[in-house]
Amino acid sequence: MCVSVCVSHGICRSLSLCVYIYSNTHSGGGLRWQMAEFTHLVVVKFKEEVVVEDIIKGLEELVSQVDIVKSFVWGKDIESMEMLRQGFTHAFMMTFGSKDDFTAFQTHPNHMQFSATFSAAIEKIVLLDFPVVAFKTPQ
Amino acid sequence: MCVSVCVSHGICRSLSLCVYIYSNTHSGGGLRWQMAEFTHLVVVKFKEEVVVEDIIKGLEELVSQVDIVKSFVWGKDIESMEMLRQGFTHAFMMTFGSKDDFTAFQTHPNHMQFSATFSAAIEKIVLLDFPVVAFKTPQ
Repeated sequence: MCVSVCVSHGICRSLSLCVYIYSNTHSGGGLRWQMAEFTHLVVVKFKEEVVVEDIIKGLEELVSQVDIVKSFVWGKDIESMEMLRQGFTHAFMMTFGSKDDFTAFQTHPNHMQFSATFSAAIEKIVLLDFPVVAFKTPQ
Repeated sequence: MCVSVCVSHGICRSLSLCVYIYSNTHSGGGLRWQMAEFTHLVVVKFKEEVVVEDIIKGLEELVSQVDIVKSFVWGKDIESMEMLRQGFTHAFMMTFGSKDDFTAFQTHPNHMQFSATFSAAIEKIVLLDFPVVAFKTPQ
């Protein structure tokens, strides 16, 4: 396993955090790179009476206040068949530079405060937290 | 609404696809940018007897074969409480340059062929397809 800072390596030319850990495995003709990133993925269905825009504003304020949140993107499903999305409507993804940063985020007072609001707004949720394996990245 | 190619704008300095559509809305002290990207998010629990590594190799082959898949990252949950991940273990995310590219992917013969294998391997699935709203991007 090697850690490299890749300035000119094509695979991460377009990414900001160019520290990858070669994962020792390769398959399908490509190499897997374990990005030095950790993703917090939240998929939800909000309660009917909830003003979703207010919740999203709250999330935006939270990630603006907490520097260790490296990125925050989200989306509202517009395409899936109901049997596949199973009532879930929104996905929220935050990334962190490391698992340690994510752990620090979990107990950050702003996060804990907002979590109460968020929890009260959701009808159902699936939450996954994982180190990012990047197989194909934008060229 | 304006479309801009941002070479020097800080918010997308580190991203490869620097075409953003200003979404006309702002909140929380920040601006929302509608990226010219479409995400296909799949969250799954595999059947017990499945060799997950084989499925992942199949996915890697698929995204290697199909150029319109702009990026493919995935992860296996290592952190969530069971009540929050609800048995789901893996998240797979593919991005496309546009919804049209995603639509083309759905009927691509390689995708249709692999979908049969993938469907047979899963015990449960949640699938969301959405245009990406990027509120905070890596600096």
